[in-house]
Amino acid sequence: MEFQVKSAEGRLGILLPGLGAVATTFIAGVEAIRKGMSQPIGSLSQMGNIRLGKRTDNRNPLIKDFVPLASLDNLVFGGWDVYEDNVYEAAVNAKVLEPGLLYSIKSELEAIQPMKAVFDKNYARNLDGTHVKEAATKYELAEALMDDMRNFKEANGCDRLVVVWCGSTEVYLEPGDVHQTVASFEEGLRNNDPRIAPSMIYAYAALKLGVPFANGAPNLTVDIPAIVELAKENGVAISGKDFKTGQTLMKTILAPGLQARALGIKGWFSSNILGNRDGLVLDDPENFKTKEVSKLGVLEDILHPDDNPELYGDIYHKIRINYYPPHGDNKESWDNIDIFGWLGYQMQIKINFLCRDSILAAPIVLDLALFTDLAQRAGMSGIQEWLSFYYKSPQTAEGLRPEHDIFKQLIKLQNTLRHMMGEDLITHLGLDYYEDLVEEGL
Amino acid sequence: MEFQVKSAEGRLGILLPGLGAVATTFIAGVEAIRKGMSQPIGSLSQMGNIRLGKRTDNRNPLIKDFVPLASLDNLVFGGWDVYEDNVYEAAVNAKVLEPGLLYSIKSELEAIQPMKAVFDKNYARNLDGTHVKEAATKYELAEALMDDMRNFKEANGCDRLVVVWCGSTEVYLEPGDVHQTVASFEEGLRNNDPRIAPSMIYAYAALKLGVPFANGAPNLTVDIPAIVELAKENGVAISGKDFKTGQTLMKTILAPGLQARALGIKGWFSSNILGNRDGLVLDDPENFKTKEVSKLGVLEDILHPDDNPELYGDIYHKIRINYYPPHGDNKESWDNIDIFGWLGYQMQIKINFLCRDSILAAPIVLDLALFTDLAQRAGMSGIQEWLSFYYKSPQTAEGLRPEHDIFKQLIKLQNTLRHMMGEDLITHLGLDYYEDLVEEGL
Amino acid sequence: MEFQVKSAEGRLGILLPGLGAVATTFIAGVEAIRKGMSQPIGSLSQMGNIRLGKRTDNRNPLIKDFVPLASLDNLVFGGWDVYEDNVYEAAVNAKVLEPGLLYSIKSELEAIQPMKAVFDKNYARNLDGTHVKEAATKYELAEALMDDMRNFKEANGCDRLVVVWCGSTEVYLEPGDVHQTVASFEEGLRNNDPRIAPSMIYAYAALKLGVPFANGAPNLTVDIPAIVELAKENGVAISGKDFKTGQTLMKTILAPGLQARALGIKGWFSSNILGNRDGLVLDDPENFKTKEVSKLGVLEDILHPDDNPELYGDIYHKIRINYYPPHGDNKESWDNIDIFGWLGYQMQIKINFLCRDSILAAPIVLDLALFTDLAQRAGMSGIQEWLSFYYKSPQTAEGLRPEHDIFKQLIKLQNTLRHMMGEDLITHLGLDYYEDLVEEGL
Amino acid sequence: MEFQVKSAEGRLGILLPGLGAVATTFIAGVEAIRKGMSQPIGSLSQMGNIRLGKRTDNRNPLIKDFVPLASLDNLVFGGWDVYEDNVYEAAVNAKVLEPGLLYSIKSELEAIQPMKAVFDKNYARNLDGTHVKEAATKYELAEALMDDMRNFKEANGCDRLVVVWCGSTEVYLEPGDVHQTVASFEEGLRNNDPRIAPSMIYAYAALKLGVPFANGAPNLTVDIPAIVELAKENGVAISGKDFKTGQTLMKTILAPGLQARALGIKGWFSSNILGNRDGLVLDDPENFKTKEVSKLGVLEDILHPDDNPELYGDIYHKIRINYYPPHGDNKESWDNIDIFGWLGYQMQIKINFLCRDSILAAPIVLDLALFTDLAQRAGMSGIQEWLSFYYKSPQTAEGLRPEHDIFKQLIKLQNTLRHMMGEDLITHLGLDYYEDLVEEGL
Repeated sequence: MEFQVKSAEGRLGILLPGLGAVATTFIAGVEAIRKGMSQPIGSLSQMGNIRLGKRTDNRNPLIKDFVPLASLDNLVFGGWDVYEDNVYEAAVNAKVLEPGLLYSIKSELEAIQPMKAVFDKNYARNLDGTHVKEAATKYELAEALMDDMRNFKEANGCDRLVVVWCGSTEVYLEPGDVHQTVASFEEGLRNNDPRIAPSMIYAYAALKLGVPFANGAPNLTVDIPAIVELAKENGVAISGKDFKTGQTLMKTILAPGLQARALGIKGWFSSNILGNRDGLVLDDPENFKTKEVSKLGVLEDILHPDDNPELYGDIYHKIRINYYPPHGDNKESWDNIDIFGWLGYQMQIKINFLCRDSILAAPIVLDLALFTDLAQRAGMSGIQEWLSFYYKSPQTAEGLRPEHDIFKQLIKLQNTLRHMMGEDLITHLGLDYYEDLVEEGL
Repeated sequence: MEFQVKSAEGRLGILLPGLGAVATTFIAGVEAIRKGMSQPIGSLSQMGNIRLGKRTDNRNPLIKDFVPLASLDNLVFGGWDVYEDNVYEAAVNAKVLEPGLLYSIKSELEAIQPMKAVFDKNYARNLDGTHVKEAATKYELAEALMDDMRNFKEANGCDRLVVVWCGSTEVYLEPGDVHQTVASFEEGLRNNDPRIAPSMIYAYAALKLGVPFANGAPNLTVDIPAIVELAKENGVAISGKDFKTGQTLMKTILAPGLQARALGIKGWFSSNILGNRDGLVLDDPENFKTKEVSKLGVLEDILHPDDNPELYGDIYHKIRINYYPPHGDNKESWDNIDIFGWLGYQMQIKINFLCRDSILAAPIVLDLALFTDLAQRAGMSGIQEWLSFYYKSPQTAEGLRPEHDIFKQLIKLQNTLRHMMGEDLITHLGLDYYEDLVEEGL
Repeated sequence: MEFQVKSAEGRLGILLPGLGAVATTFIAGVEAIRKGMSQPIGSLSQMGNIRLGKRTDNRNPLIKDFVPLASLDNLVFGGWDVYEDNVYEAAVNAKVLEPGLLYSIKSELEAIQPMKAVFDKNYARNLDGTHVKEAATKYELAEALMDDMRNFKEANGCDRLVVVWCGSTEVYLEPGDVHQTVASFEEGLRNNDPRIAPSMIYAYAALKLGVPFANGAPNLTVDIPAIVELAKENGVAISGKDFKTGQTLMKTILAPGLQARALGIKGWFSSNILGNRDGLVLDDPENFKTKEVSKLGVLEDILHPDDNPELYGDIYHKIRINYYPPHGDNKESWDNIDIFGWLGYQMQIKINFLCRDSILAAPIVLDLALFTDLAQRAGMSGIQEWLSFYYKSPQTAEGLRPEHDIFKQLIKLQNTLRHMMGEDLITHLGLDYYEDLVEEGL
Repeated sequence: MEFQVKSAEGRLGILLPGLGAVATTFIAGVEAIRKGMSQPIGSLSQMGNIRLGKRTDNRNPLIKDFVPLASLDNLVFGGWDVYEDNVYEAAVNAKVLEPGLLYSIKSELEAIQPMKAVFDKNYARNLDGTHVKEAATKYELAEALMDDMRNFKEANGCDRLVVVWCGSTEVYLEPGDVHQTVASFEEGLRNNDPRIAPSMIYAYAALKLGVPFANGAPNLTVDIPAIVELAKENGVAISGKDFKTGQTLMKTILAPGLQARALGIKGWFSSNILGNRDGLVLDDPENFKTKEVSKLGVLEDILHPDDNPELYGDIYHKIRINYYPPHGDNKESWDNIDIFGWLGYQMQIKINFLCRDSILAAPIVLDLALFTDLAQRAGMSGIQEWLSFYYKSPQTAEGLRPEHDIFKQLIKLQNTLRHMMGEDLITHLGLDYYEDLVEEGL
């Protein structure tokens, strides 16, 4: 398998359904970075290094200097929202970034007006959309979105587009027959099947135009056979789901560490307080269920209780998300973890993470946009499992267990990049340093 | 490089300098496990699995079923201590394990009497040794230790021995000329050179007899050219230093996670409270310095500030260990970590680990004893970098930067075992699952 | 108002509806204390001092040496439960006290068999009572309880009785017309009015016999006009409601402290995890509501937002109780408090209380039993506001705002005792120390 | 004892030795409040209420409406510092208040230039003073300070002055013979006795002019017989020592709460991290000792271990202050408290206070200035024990144990104000609400 990666020249349009706290923090950040006012901290693609060759070779380039990514200067932003605020107004309301910073890029942000959203109150009962498309069928809504994309591409002189979902969590949904094939799905669009969520209409529209799609919420969206089929047919990259920030990020860091040492886990209680729009939406039990399912699977998939029932066969795992306005976007988590070691003796770990939701999510939007565009140019279509690193609930080929261990996810991502560029894969064996052997790359 | 691993048959004697809380918890634990009363939780060698082949092969044996380790039933225990308490008395005093558990294995523990220790109050000023060897020179002390080892081996019908240092932290020492060659070191032994610490005398005695040595304290011990030279000459395995438990364990789990996401770190404040004998020894600033140096290097070696000065070039890293008798062996750590993300916005992580020092250390003693014996039987002599996983401050070949990232350490350990047994190494690339390729082992 | 306190001679029977974790920890503790094995830590009546006279008088007797309380040796225990386990079995199941301790007082505890309980599944849906009274009407149930009390008193040679409710939280209930007068209440008993909760039947039975009643749960019970009227008519002491332990205890300590310094409060988020029977019952939203109402009022009543709207007019106060079996009776709370100071600058306080629910509640049962008996002997009938100190939601005379500040509650309790015994009240003015004045008691 | 409180008319000059973070936050805050931009949160004198009469009287005026305090509009600020920055520059450097806020009151702050300080490097070795007075003897330095005060008063048209020490912690000092009488002290001033600290020279100068003095640092200063004698002779009010903020504030809130419930304490570990100038000074062990002594006494004086050896006789109390620049003025404390309850069962409380040092201290400066001026006008001279509320280490008459319980301190303060204004003292007895008695004020 050899890769011929097409050039990253030309403008890349990044289209975001949902111009709330995350999306506006992302856009404002890139504007500030382009002006030299700040740095893309938290972005692996921009700030991360990758080791190449042997340890003693001392080759550790930045990833952006190693693989051909679109330059930040070539990005153009657009999106849809259920409110008609422009990106400046939305960013001010989100209260994530300081007013002074926003003011300094006001004109750039004001220029970005949201397109009318596809919205269905049944999928987000705590929201009231006022800036929404009207159409007789979901099929027509999809067509309207395709028009939006085509118009945006032309108006902004873009060579390529990519869509990253930054909208709300939708109510819980299980895949049904309407989601099984492209044909049944298209019929459902025409019949206004209630099981087709707004996010699916966006994904369908993008894939029909050959535009790759990354899903930042725990919604089903691209995780249905119909969309996977369409992605393969049209040779488009997809990935999901649910940006891995805050508490789940910590969980996928810590759980592999405990497992590495064969320490047992008896209980894991995770509580969150947050006061932004995301918190308001998740205050509805049906929406919370979607998020909960996405968050709960993490431990089981890391710890493999089947292989290790004595250590991980009886974990009481509970997650709470509490709407707490005083903290705004400053989501805070508190975890209590009950572990046990030698002879079953118990210990406790408490983690209090005073984080900022959108600050952690914004660079993920950037990386997913750039890496998805890279994959598309490299001819990698369908599910991009190598981007699992960014997701709470990674999409995989049917029958493959997802990998949640963030360190295995990182190695997969890095070895994929190495492989793409013809470099040796890293195994960390390294016996040659001690035996004067010549097996390259070990 | 092919391995012919010799059989693990016969009895393995594990000799422990320092029969305090860690060593007695280790010995009592193995006794309890052999009686079926408990399980070796926290021991990777006994409870950990290793994936072999492709993900879809579903081959995840226990490590102890994959590589030929000495069986727990074939272990025999001995050691030296500056107090003459037998292992039962010492375990009761340590207050780590419940009296009921200890009582049920009292006869086995009482049978283990400490041999007289090599002790020098200049190296541990808060201790008063009463059960110590007397001799005119350090060379004679080394010979007395060799006699101890030979006698123990014969008396207990052991086929092989391994020494694991479980004694106290010694005062801070930098390598000098006396430590440079075997010849200068032996001259120093004869001249009673004050720069030769007690732990070095143990290491020298072991290596002279071809007995491998693992160093659980932050002392210099085997980290000097003279000892490395002797290990190579005699074909003996060595490794060190400083068991990685508690706070540093958490640090080497968390720091790679933050780095994975390219999140910056501004400060890391680590405070510990503990009330056991280890805490008392570390209340002396000179002994604390040895521990501090061992603990401080961790962050720098994981984060590579040279490659990433914007993220990691200015970390204020401070470590405090406070003697606090009310907690006894229940060492507790509190960490405050100041991180920054997108555009430099700051976040904080607080970790409170209510841990048990000896409960975390005991299974490390077991794993190091068994893996060191395995390495010796596999003909791997000198520094065992693949055991870095267990150490706060891993010993490496000269010129090689140590790896502190616990996940890279784990991959190194696992790939070494796979390599030893002729299995494919794991790279987590996995593109074949998506492209029907046939590259085995990816 | 002068008090003639009757003698505490003779046996005092303490009858407990609900022989679960709290009640068995209380009974077992008193047995252990009587045998000299332990001490009544946490009991103000037994271990607390009271200052008398001027600071320089150095009169600080123990409270039990100052007022005539029943001696621990004269206490006799009984109770009702929906399960037929005796107190030894129930204490073992509760897993609060160590098996060794319980074993040493096994015969005393086994001798206490629960009487059949008055139970109504509509009031505690997560419980299944099997050891319950059967009768045609609630009136007959009340009569059966009165028989139980009379029989217990005679069989155990008691001079006096006191009832302390240690049963579960009942579902939420608001006072209705049936609760307004003794007459309407008795009619309700005969008609099986569904608004008469089991706990009310116990209270009615006790008061009819002149036995004082203290209410340890957040149930309405004695907080209805009919019961207050009956208490006055029969000259019986009552008090309630809801033992103040754990998180609320901390809240009534901390909130007055913040208020003392005129620091503002913006939000208070309180989360709890616990795994005992209490946690199971509170997992039902209807039962949680009763508890929530009891816990929520605390802040408002301490902070008086009407007087200080700038500081306390907009507090977001949220309480969560999560059933988490791994912790059993070891209830743990985590509070996040958002405060603001000078010029509105914000600060945060996080409190993590690793507490033990029944260990905190047991001495409250003891104190309430002894002080209620004291009040009864002193001729103080009706609502005992001076016992507010022990309650999350203190009962007061109609129209009087309850006092939740634990320090004002303590002064009230202590000054009541001083007043009862003819000592000067304490005001902490103390100017006389500086001016050689002679105003006694200042 | 009747009070004739003189009028608060006219201008009050507040003179501050030490124009660092605390003093500039105080001055800038009052300026912002006078402009209506903010509120004096955290100031009991400005924002706190006081209950008068019976609970049912509903009389809860603000304290500033109850006693005749100087109005904020009548305050004038001045001070001394070892650096020549004006208050605007010093406030900007302190990084406590937002630049925007400071900018809006720039001209007012710039107008306040520090007078040259009395400085002695032996008393603060981590500081380098450049803006200091030169004189042959300490007596001449005192005279220079008196000149400063007289000039300031005249230049600013002040009716009255008050001095509040806001300077650094000095090295540890015990009272010696030079501190015993006014005569020996004055001789020491003339002889440059090294035991006379700079802060004492300020206090002496103030008292000689009849200007009251409040001591915000843990220095000895006014806590020596010579100064107490001088205060009485000249009829001047003094008080001290060490502003009670942050961790000690929490400790004097929490400890009385635990004691109220007769809960035992086994250990209290207090760690602090802070990065301001105060932290730098305290990094010197000699200066830390002064602070440590001030902080350590708190628990013992609250808990009275002599009266309650079973509960408080064996507390391991340890305090650590760590210089940690990343947090600047945002001092953060972490406390671990080991308590025990019923039958000795152990529990733990962890408190993490993310506080702001100067934000908590600034309103204390205000209250002490205003209340000290009030005391002076009321003719209360010498030690003002009723201001204990504001101090870590309250000054009392010889032989009187200081009161650290913040709630008793508050009652003392409030009852002093009530007494001063002829109102009934409050005892919280309140039996009259239940018995229709007419004892006023209960």
